[in-house]
Amino acid sequence: MTTADLAAHVSERDRRAIARAISTVENDSPETGALLRALAPLTGHAYRIGITGPPGAGKSTLTSELTKLLRAHDKRVGIIAVDPTSPFTGGALLGDRIRMQEIAMDEGVYVRSMATRGSLGGLSAKAKDAADVLDAAGFDFVIFETVGVGQSELDIAKAADTTIVVLVPESGDAVQAMKSGLMEIADFFVVNKSDREGADQAVRALKTILSFRVTHAEQEWIPPVVKTTASKNIGIEDVLREIEKHRNYLESTGQLISRRKSRERERVRELVEAMLRFDFWTPARAEMLETELDRIVAHERTSFDLAHELVGKLKT
Amino acid sequence: MTTADLAAHVSERDRRAIARAISTVENDSPETGALLRALAPLTGHAYRIGITGPPGAGKSTLTSELTKLLRAHDKRVGIIAVDPTSPFTGGALLGDRIRMQEIAMDEGVYVRSMATRGSLGGLSAKAKDAADVLDAAGFDFVIFETVGVGQSELDIAKAADTTIVVLVPESGDAVQAMKSGLMEIADFFVVNKSDREGADQAVRALKTILSFRVTHAEQEWIPPVVKTTASKNIGIEDVLREIEKHRNYLESTGQLISRRKSRERERVRELVEAMLRFDFWTPARAEMLETELDRIVAHERTSFDLAHELVGKLKT
Repeated sequence: MTTADLAAHVSERDRRAIARAISTVENDSPETGALLRALAPLTGHAYRIGITGPPGAGKSTLTSELTKLLRAHDKRVGIIAVDPTSPFTGGALLGDRIRMQEIAMDEGVYVRSMATRGSLGGLSAKAKDAADVLDAAGFDFVIFETVGVGQSELDIAKAADTTIVVLVPESGDAVQAMKSGLMEIADFFVVNKSDREGADQAVRALKTILSFRVTHAEQEWIPPVVKTTASKNIGIEDVLREIEKHRNYLESTGQLISRRKSRERERVRELVEAMLRFDFWTPARAEMLETELDRIVAHERTSFDLAHELVGKLKT
Repeated sequence: MTTADLAAHVSERDRRAIARAISTVENDSPETGALLRALAPLTGHAYRIGITGPPGAGKSTLTSELTKLLRAHDKRVGIIAVDPTSPFTGGALLGDRIRMQEIAMDEGVYVRSMATRGSLGGLSAKAKDAADVLDAAGFDFVIFETVGVGQSELDIAKAADTTIVVLVPESGDAVQAMKSGLMEIADFFVVNKSDREGADQAVRALKTILSFRVTHAEQEWIPPVVKTTASKNIGIEDVLREIEKHRNYLESTGQLISRRKSRERERVRELVEAMLRFDFWTPARAEMLETELDRIVAHERTSFDLAHELVGKLKT
């Protein structure tokens, strides 16, 4: 099949073509460039939602319930799970698995899990490519479910139009969220499992922490905090309402375009710098660095010289 | 003066030579490489301490008092202040200024402030170069005072042998510390201004947060928390004791060398990648990126193609 054929099948919502297209970008196949080029004119329709948070916060349950609600509104939903603790990718409990399978059976839903192994261009760029495939296949929403740990996972969540950070009421969770940089990327927060004790305190604590945020003059959006109990389907309507509010905010202020532009700028820079680094750090150069480090620590030569020598600019 | 002469004068602790040498590295002068090369054999003696934390935590007061204590032990101290709120670099109150001037008059102390303007190789690499100059000038301790905001400031603090994070008892300070990544880099914490209310609670809160830290099997060092009131010279002996404890720990476990090695590895990589980026992002390429972003957002072309075209690898 030519890439043009594959792209055509993707646009016709052929599930096997979608699977094959995502595998193509995921594996850095030689046809990746041609495929993305063929898909580009078909993209731009899907609204991208990032759902992230610490392990055990109930991200997949929330993803499932939100997907069901979107399906009830007749929206088609693609899910990209980059989360080693997600039932989509293997982890988790039986109840979660059943919930997932329920939605995965639906023709209007497509679920894809991606491994977190590193590669040229990074996981984050690949997840964006996969989202483009789903976008081209006409899905109305693409949900990235990623665990909120590690830079590339955060980069994926950040690449969404609306990023949701899911926490649980237990103390320490908000603390972890701040440590790991989740606070900065949240367009809104969900305190899930809020039938547990301490949910109201957790919401208050979060709001207090949010009041510490450095707010820019032009930044009018203050991240709201929503309580849910996803496993009992409580609060999901509120989540969807906040997504729509945030979407309206982005669209009415023109920030949706500027956000997508800066996402693409990052993607180009990420790809370029990954290529530069990949081309630069040949085994010979990496070995030279390690060998010379001993001499540097022994004060026999300088980092400055070594860097210039490696780049081929050593002036003597 | 030749760079060899300059290096010789630095090693003789000539203050004007030290000033000139630091300016040389700070301004990316053409002699930088030769100078660092001449200084390298003279370095390795100084123990490097990073003092960082949010604005207003009393970092400069602590730096001054610690310096006085080190002087009482007959140690020579170089200070590199990279902190826009520091009295060394211009900000702060009269009392602080007087305290600073007091120590700056001492022949056994050298104070240098560095601007936070960006440049090739980054502020962090330059601050490390300046520390090498002071090291070559025979200072026993080099203290980096940096405000704990922003990546390059954190990079400087991280480059020390022992990194101290200074906080105040007020609630929210620990929260900010976590948000900004200060938790990860602290070898120990100082709760300063602890004559204020809430100091004991702040210490307890910090210890609770520290208990959340992911501890690696091989990581035996648990960051202690020290209370001080630097403005009244209370607790400074405890700070010095913890520095010595941490130093002994690093030396006895061989981690001092591995830490310095990874600091130099980072420095080489930082310099190399800055040079690659600098060489790559010519005005023409940057302009091309911005122009083409509009087409990418309009789905007329792909980020993947643009990145490959920029790197000169476009296959059609």
